[in-house]
Amino acid sequence: MFLGETIGTAVLILLGGGVVAAVVLKQSKAHAAGWVAIAFGWGFAVMTAVYIAAPLSGAHLNPAVTLGIAIKDGAWSDVPVYLAGQFLGAFLGAVLVWIAYYGHFSATLRDEILVTEARQRPAAAVGGPGPVLGVFSTGPQIRNVWQNLATEIIGTFVLVLAVLTQGLNDEGNGLGALGALITAFVVVGIGLSLGGPTGYAINPARDLGPRIAHALLPMPDKGGSDWSYAWIPVVGPLAGGACAAGLYELAFT
Amino acid sequence: MFLGETIGTAVLILLGGGVVAAVVLKQSKAHAAGWVAIAFGWGFAVMTAVYIAAPLSGAHLNPAVTLGIAIKDGAWSDVPVYLAGQFLGAFLGAVLVWIAYYGHFSATLRDEILVTEARQRPAAAVGGPGPVLGVFSTGPQIRNVWQNLATEIIGTFVLVLAVLTQGLNDEGNGLGALGALITAFVVVGIGLSLGGPTGYAINPARDLGPRIAHALLPMPDKGGSDWSYAWIPVVGPLAGGACAAGLYELAFT
Amino acid sequence: MFLGETIGTAVLILLGGGVVAAVVLKQSKAHAAGWVAIAFGWGFAVMTAVYIAAPLSGAHLNPAVTLGIAIKDGAWSDVPVYLAGQFLGAFLGAVLVWIAYYGHFSATLRDEILVTEARQRPAAAVGGPGPVLGVFSTGPQIRNVWQNLATEIIGTFVLVLAVLTQGLNDEGNGLGALGALITAFVVVGIGLSLGGPTGYAINPARDLGPRIAHALLPMPDKGGSDWSYAWIPVVGPLAGGACAAGLYELAFT
Amino acid sequence: MFLGETIGTAVLILLGGGVVAAVVLKQSKAHAAGWVAIAFGWGFAVMTAVYIAAPLSGAHLNPAVTLGIAIKDGAWSDVPVYLAGQFLGAFLGAVLVWIAYYGHFSATLRDEILVTEARQRPAAAVGGPGPVLGVFSTGPQIRNVWQNLATEIIGTFVLVLAVLTQGLNDEGNGLGALGALITAFVVVGIGLSLGGPTGYAINPARDLGPRIAHALLPMPDKGGSDWSYAWIPVVGPLAGGACAAGLYELAFT
Repeated sequence: MFLGETIGTAVLILLGGGVVAAVVLKQSKAHAAGWVAIAFGWGFAVMTAVYIAAPLSGAHLNPAVTLGIAIKDGAWSDVPVYLAGQFLGAFLGAVLVWIAYYGHFSATLRDEILVTEARQRPAAAVGGPGPVLGVFSTGPQIRNVWQNLATEIIGTFVLVLAVLTQGLNDEGNGLGALGALITAFVVVGIGLSLGGPTGYAINPARDLGPRIAHALLPMPDKGGSDWSYAWIPVVGPLAGGACAAGLYELAFT
Repeated sequence: MFLGETIGTAVLILLGGGVVAAVVLKQSKAHAAGWVAIAFGWGFAVMTAVYIAAPLSGAHLNPAVTLGIAIKDGAWSDVPVYLAGQFLGAFLGAVLVWIAYYGHFSATLRDEILVTEARQRPAAAVGGPGPVLGVFSTGPQIRNVWQNLATEIIGTFVLVLAVLTQGLNDEGNGLGALGALITAFVVVGIGLSLGGPTGYAINPARDLGPRIAHALLPMPDKGGSDWSYAWIPVVGPLAGGACAAGLYELAFT
Repeated sequence: MFLGETIGTAVLILLGGGVVAAVVLKQSKAHAAGWVAIAFGWGFAVMTAVYIAAPLSGAHLNPAVTLGIAIKDGAWSDVPVYLAGQFLGAFLGAVLVWIAYYGHFSATLRDEILVTEARQRPAAAVGGPGPVLGVFSTGPQIRNVWQNLATEIIGTFVLVLAVLTQGLNDEGNGLGALGALITAFVVVGIGLSLGGPTGYAINPARDLGPRIAHALLPMPDKGGSDWSYAWIPVVGPLAGGACAAGLYELAFT
Repeated sequence: MFLGETIGTAVLILLGGGVVAAVVLKQSKAHAAGWVAIAFGWGFAVMTAVYIAAPLSGAHLNPAVTLGIAIKDGAWSDVPVYLAGQFLGAFLGAVLVWIAYYGHFSATLRDEILVTEARQRPAAAVGGPGPVLGVFSTGPQIRNVWQNLATEIIGTFVLVLAVLTQGLNDEGNGLGALGALITAFVVVGIGLSLGGPTGYAINPARDLGPRIAHALLPMPDKGGSDWSYAWIPVVGPLAGGACAAGLYELAFT
């Protein structure tokens, strides 16, 4: 179970962080491929990770999902093991992105001297937190605690509600191929529709694990890890997951 | 049933209006992501909403679908409950978009002073009715009652015919994951192919509910809600749904 | 059966021609949305049409598919009915596109005075045969009978081989939702990969029916219908379908 | 079995090489359609090829997959037949791309005089190895043996792990339509996320077969076939496939 969550979340962050790297880092063949590439890249990251991890752990891969399912099923004992696997996996996935795009991080940092540029770059550029940190974790385009929190709550609410209703649509099938596909497209949809303001963490492990990796990995002139924002993509998704579980209990059972 | 339609239509408009906000509002990470993003965003909005609402209400989420099914099945007694849920849900969904993109609405309105600009902006820009109203409801690129009505009739006709034939393709499966997926891609297809002239309302609740929200929500300098056009995305889709049900009765039974 | 092919092919051309209209005609919200929009638009056109027509006629919607299946099954008696429905449906679908985009055809023709422009526009522009004819039928970027014919043969070969092997993968399921989805993505794939040189007719009815509509519909200054090229998207697809059926007989039975 | 791998890998390379040709060659309607087109084009190439070849050979179509399955199942006797079919098919597929885009290769080579231009073109252009060689085989944007090898290992690792876990998710279904679809989107995901640095060969036959075709086909001024890089997309994918099989044995059985 621990292994499943670790492998799955590592694959999730490898492909999810990977698509951001592919689009924002210099010298990548997918440079500037745009938001459609990012949204589908994250969606298929989820699909691949869910598909691989489902036979081992049921593929939560997200503390907000684990919380929602625990509220729904009342089974809290496995929660710590799930969380540990998710955060470890997210960290490992971020390290794999760093390996796969090693020279491209250097090229981006060399060309741009990010530390100075960060204050001047246009706010509408992809990756609010600057291209290199943006490969690892999310950041808002407009910094507003209440809106940023609300956006993460709303996005995660939709994700977890869709995950919880899965059992009602396809009873007895486990996750399987079709469930992985639906979850993928739910995430593409959330990315396309609700990703604009904050970059849709909608998953505490997805944001915090790679942020720690960003802080630890050796990259000259990499800039800060924006720790002042780090609590929002943790608290928002957990609140959104809890809301979804609450509505599920209220309306679907 | 009422709850299912309300939740489902709210999710539909949250993600559907959300993708328009993501693409047209200033400071969004998805700014100018283009029509492919909008068409897939609306498609996955439908998929997610259908998937969540199907176990509760069968997920009509659209008065034109409710009308088509009522004609097909001859069951008219639930129609008022369905419609009430759909319009309430559409209104709530539009409010959620407004919350998620709160600062981005302000930024867009501040930067553009829309009231004056609305008369001068190039007609081919995404969002005929101006970016802010365009997040809420549809509007034509070329204002021509008969063509606009015909386009909405034709688009809804395709949608409702595909929904009605669903039972013939996958008997006994209910909507389920695969039905949600097919409906999603039918909507992506209609958006890509028939969305050019009017922005494809193809759903009275999708257009009227958010238009009311646009009229009520406090946004300085937001401009008018284009009420003179508002009847077309109500009448056109209902007529298209009725045509589809008529052809279904004629050719498929 | 006739009705199924007529309705299905009409929906196919309505959405397929529609996406080209959406991308190439002036004043469309999807103007210049690019080749990805066109390839997915045609794919979901096929999906929607197959899904609607499958319960009535098995959804060939393409003389090359009808030919391939007739060779495989040895059942030739229904072929004329299928062909008649396909060509009638393709003609009707093209008329529906003309209605849905009525003002946009005028706007495009008015702005461009196509007749003169056709000789000077850059060869790499989307829609080799000019934007208006391009909504109806296909044309080559580089005019070379043997290459154009080969490209259509190869593209249709892949399509028909995939259709014929469908029965081996999913026995007893008929076409259903999943078959429609796979066929859609096969067509997206062919469009993305083999559409570059000729615009991938891969279907005689898809090209000839709308070309006749182009010749008959009243549009001032619409230009010629390029009849000298018209035989290639008829002969090429039929040859490709026959090749696929031949290989199927040889290798898969 | 041999025939299945040959046909399947030929279709894979025909559509996969085809989408690169469509996007990078001059005078193609899909010219400059971008990385999203390439990633989806390769994904649907895999889907179509898997779907066609599955009934004959189980559709490995990739020596790395054959190696991973041989390690998992301990069945090594069929390996030579699979490999022979894969390399022959890849070569034939590349020849078909050359036929379908015949005039476009000439136009590209004529316009650009690639031999001289190759030293000056910007490194971020799509197709590191130049547009014409790029249609056939992969090449790195930043030439670094260890990073290039690591990227290919990581990408193939994800692919083969997803293929191996397929049996756990959908027991008894063989590959079928849904398996083909999932595999397609795994490949789209790898392309979007890990394709940036090297162009994601993730398949020795996909790279070496077409590279041989590039060396043999008559194209004036076509330039070299970059043989110094050719071992990386062979060794990397094989190592990645072996790693995936190792992890599978360790964690999933």
